[in-house]
Amino acid sequence: MAILREAVHHRPECEYAYAHDESTVHVRLRTKRGDLRRCRILYGDKYDWPDSAERKRMRKVGSDERFDYWQAAVEPPHRRLCYAFHLSEGNTDESRSGGVDDEQLWLTEWGFEPGSADGLPTAGKTEPRHYFEYPYLHPADANDPPEWVSDAVFYQIFPERFANGDPDRDPDDVEKWGELPDRDSFFGGDLQGIVDNLDYLDGLGITALYLTPIFEAPSNHKYDTTDYMRIDPHFGDEETLRRLVDGAHDRGMRVMLDAVFNHCGWTFEPFQDVVENGPDSEYTDWFHVNEFPIEFEPRPSYDTFAFVPQMPKLNTENPEVREYLLEVATHWVEEFGIDGWRLDVANEVDHQFWRELRREVKAIDPEVYILGEVWHDARPWLRGDQFDAAMNYPFSEAVHAFLTEREIDAGRFADKATRFLMRHPDRTNGVLFNLLGSHDTPRLRRRCDDDERCVRLALLLLFTFRGVPCVYYGDEVGMTGGDDPDCRRPMVWDESEQNTALRRFLEELIELRSDHRPLRRGRVRFDRDRTSREVLVFRRILPGDGPGDGDADREENGDGEDAITVAINRGNEPAVVPLEDERGTFLFETGEAMGDGSQLEIGDGTVVIPARGGGAWT
Amino acid sequence: MAILREAVHHRPECEYAYAHDESTVHVRLRTKRGDLRRCRILYGDKYDWPDSAERKRMRKVGSDERFDYWQAAVEPPHRRLCYAFHLSEGNTDESRSGGVDDEQLWLTEWGFEPGSADGLPTAGKTEPRHYFEYPYLHPADANDPPEWVSDAVFYQIFPERFANGDPDRDPDDVEKWGELPDRDSFFGGDLQGIVDNLDYLDGLGITALYLTPIFEAPSNHKYDTTDYMRIDPHFGDEETLRRLVDGAHDRGMRVMLDAVFNHCGWTFEPFQDVVENGPDSEYTDWFHVNEFPIEFEPRPSYDTFAFVPQMPKLNTENPEVREYLLEVATHWVEEFGIDGWRLDVANEVDHQFWRELRREVKAIDPEVYILGEVWHDARPWLRGDQFDAAMNYPFSEAVHAFLTEREIDAGRFADKATRFLMRHPDRTNGVLFNLLGSHDTPRLRRRCDDDERCVRLALLLLFTFRGVPCVYYGDEVGMTGGDDPDCRRPMVWDESEQNTALRRFLEELIELRSDHRPLRRGRVRFDRDRTSREVLVFRRILPGDGPGDGDADREENGDGEDAITVAINRGNEPAVVPLEDERGTFLFETGEAMGDGSQLEIGDGTVVIPARGGGAWT
Repeated sequence: MAILREAVHHRPECEYAYAHDESTVHVRLRTKRGDLRRCRILYGDKYDWPDSAERKRMRKVGSDERFDYWQAAVEPPHRRLCYAFHLSEGNTDESRSGGVDDEQLWLTEWGFEPGSADGLPTAGKTEPRHYFEYPYLHPADANDPPEWVSDAVFYQIFPERFANGDPDRDPDDVEKWGELPDRDSFFGGDLQGIVDNLDYLDGLGITALYLTPIFEAPSNHKYDTTDYMRIDPHFGDEETLRRLVDGAHDRGMRVMLDAVFNHCGWTFEPFQDVVENGPDSEYTDWFHVNEFPIEFEPRPSYDTFAFVPQMPKLNTENPEVREYLLEVATHWVEEFGIDGWRLDVANEVDHQFWRELRREVKAIDPEVYILGEVWHDARPWLRGDQFDAAMNYPFSEAVHAFLTEREIDAGRFADKATRFLMRHPDRTNGVLFNLLGSHDTPRLRRRCDDDERCVRLALLLLFTFRGVPCVYYGDEVGMTGGDDPDCRRPMVWDESEQNTALRRFLEELIELRSDHRPLRRGRVRFDRDRTSREVLVFRRILPGDGPGDGDADREENGDGEDAITVAINRGNEPAVVPLEDERGTFLFETGEAMGDGSQLEIGDGTVVIPARGGGAWT
Repeated sequence: MAILREAVHHRPECEYAYAHDESTVHVRLRTKRGDLRRCRILYGDKYDWPDSAERKRMRKVGSDERFDYWQAAVEPPHRRLCYAFHLSEGNTDESRSGGVDDEQLWLTEWGFEPGSADGLPTAGKTEPRHYFEYPYLHPADANDPPEWVSDAVFYQIFPERFANGDPDRDPDDVEKWGELPDRDSFFGGDLQGIVDNLDYLDGLGITALYLTPIFEAPSNHKYDTTDYMRIDPHFGDEETLRRLVDGAHDRGMRVMLDAVFNHCGWTFEPFQDVVENGPDSEYTDWFHVNEFPIEFEPRPSYDTFAFVPQMPKLNTENPEVREYLLEVATHWVEEFGIDGWRLDVANEVDHQFWRELRREVKAIDPEVYILGEVWHDARPWLRGDQFDAAMNYPFSEAVHAFLTEREIDAGRFADKATRFLMRHPDRTNGVLFNLLGSHDTPRLRRRCDDDERCVRLALLLLFTFRGVPCVYYGDEVGMTGGDDPDCRRPMVWDESEQNTALRRFLEELIELRSDHRPLRRGRVRFDRDRTSREVLVFRRILPGDGPGDGDADREENGDGEDAITVAINRGNEPAVVPLEDERGTFLFETGEAMGDGSQLEIGDGTVVIPARGGGAWT
């Protein structure tokens, strides 16, 4: 056998080599799954190479369907790093034997070279002849997301549907609270309604709010902005927003608003000016007009979001537009102290604009969380120069494929999740915005076909996985609904209509997460030995001390470290899962609360996970 | 057989998918060499998918040791692009047969799906279920290098050694012109010396000058700046620089200066202030001081370039430093109209700084060429947001490995060169700064062991390859020299000591390049059928009309297009190379001028390339 060279992948200065903090670089390597017995990194200073070189074992941090991923944390002595990988063949599967005769390879930027058996440069030889470079570790280039985000529990609010705190501000002809919405319904929800319920949210354990847009706009969703500098009068005014932000802050709760900078509303004054004045308007270059006069049918004669005539796309390459939008972005941070911007349709706006936005917003407050709506691979925006994180729809899709659609088994979930985790630096993974549904998707409960055990399992996974969890308003009390507009029903406030057991379940989950740092900060290690088709087992492991990674072997097993094990059994039969040792301390379980009498049973070094149940232990 | 999935690689928004121009996206895919018979891209608008999808054949644009690279140019109708790849197995080697039963696969961001035989979505099915996204084509994100660079021929000057035009400005104790330099020698070269020889350079055919640093500094190389705002008094003054720039411009020649922003000189006033005042200096944060007092031995107590105490590293994360250096960068462009900045040790300065520099410099003049000194894989700097190009040392190393060290054969050269070309967008490849030697390496002639046929072959390759060629001063008259300081000998001006035949050879090469657009703008296609161990054959092919790529099959063969074939025979025997057709028109040949009587011989549809000779024809 030989190492499959075509599978080996490394690329400097991306998720495969990045500044983890001021003194540490994380380096990753991808190889064919099962191909290597061991992988080492030889690293040192370029101007003192290879004399100063040290070697370190890389840790196998995960596997997907086809690949193993290796990682090491190294501290370049003078912030300059050159490195080479030493690959030792040898399958860890029992079906193949590893031995001293297996292939040894160096990998550098120039390709492969035959490797020495011990992974050290051979005395008197110049092996390896080349290296990769991470030329200089600059904090300015590091991905440095706000610390608070990893500890947060978000709650997404669609303000028109959450609570009506000020009926005087209702639009005309509001529907009766509790009716089913259509696309054009108004129910009268507003900011005062949120202020009135801050204690409710605080009681749940929520520590951060994400509000969909609140600026003046004709629609109920307000993604068609009329005026970016004015709170929608049906929602409140600056005074209400201030009460909301201050009230949240008083409770230790953060507030993130929704920035719709890809497009504006039809009613946005500059666009109206173009409609009225055509090519003579001073605002023509604020948009992408393909032809005058402005036409709306069959397709608009100007670029829009999707093909929606009500949402003309803004030309963010026009300096005036940039200046205007940057003023908007900084205004609400500076004047109201908001803690985050969620950027709508972020992937269709140019990168240059996002870089400027980051610079200006972070200059005011580096703790502002910048979150992009990107449904697909978000790497181009998460290089440290644009967003802190993206809405983690890939995670959401994987959870649904595993738990609700049951298209993939637990092993394939682990594969997919690993592939997604390996797309980003560790710290970025810690602040990815994990969700199971939103105003743009069917609700979790609907996707679970009303099976509450499925809902609970999905929530258990959400709250024990890496990334920051977000609950969509009402999911906690059992609300259901299909695609937009059905997923935007008015919040159920009547206790008799609420699923209070589910709400308590969520409160416990939030408490679990907040009580156990590994669930907020630990890395994920999927436990393939204990994972079966129906049962997913993974651990959340806190790194040892210091910025480095400690000993690769100890880390691999999580020995002596703070670690929590999570098991998710989607099957219809109870599952027996071995414990790490005989002293498991149970932290959490599902099943009992369902009234079916099942609960975690501890046996001789094993635990029984109930059918469609799950648990966490340490 | 099956398609080797581990070898398949695509990554959105990097060199695998990028904005080629305002309306065109280039998409690339990598597969195992020889694995596929055909590769197609299905593409359309995300909001109209898959109804609007069109398909297109991808062109195999090159191969390296292990991989084939496929490329297509697509024009998304509404600037939004989603796409999927359709891979059809079938080796084109005769030893394997391709047929309808071979594997067909779709590749999307979510992975592989079984593919239909015709590469179209199957009617009534949702295949492929997913896609990749290039969400929106923004000119602001495109790599948009200055047009003039592709047509340029650069000449690198080390001013202290090129010509002494003003002996009044000589430093004390200059060496006699023509002596061998040591590290501390001064010879009196200056800017007036360059002014005096603009006609010489113009006569050679040079269209752009690259000067190593000219700002005040104690050393002969001036990479240890004392004052970034002052011309070194031994070199001249602002008046001299103005004469130089204007004189060059009058001849249609551009001028690129060297920006040393990674570090300054020991004598730089702010650093002297730190030395004198220690922690009390207002400039302490301009540098990376690890410990006070400032120590120089055994290693400096502050960060430096390499471990050189005379070159303290600047802290480009300090806003004051950034502001100062940006002022320097803009000053010389604005006030003197220089046409390019070559950025010294560019890889060790933070990316944020380079982004700002680009923004500020391009705001003054978008035609300024921004060139980074990066010896290794330069992709992190060539995303369109920082440099236009990098010094192409990887190309240089490949040429030397093939022609001077003879470590790799012609096929391996084609492999390496292809791998390097596939690292960058097409337009970036057109402006990469190709060189065969510099003030930091032994001279070409030395690397060729004084074998002039080798020198000529290397120059032929330099001037017929993709990227902009640069000649190191004096190489054209046969100067030699080893590593620094030997490669920095004073220019040989005495005609009796000049190799005038070589100079004429270079003039002809420059003329060849300037007469034939394919050599400046055409893509490279290595001709593997005609390439042997000793003989490298490649074509430079101009794309057809418009921004698209036209028909993949026609392009593959260069039919009906403007194309030039180049053959390089490094062997000691003449080589017979088949012509494309019977009407080859010879443009250039080496061999004859060597006085050994050999020259290109045209036979029946073949051409004889002399031993250690080469040629170009159309």
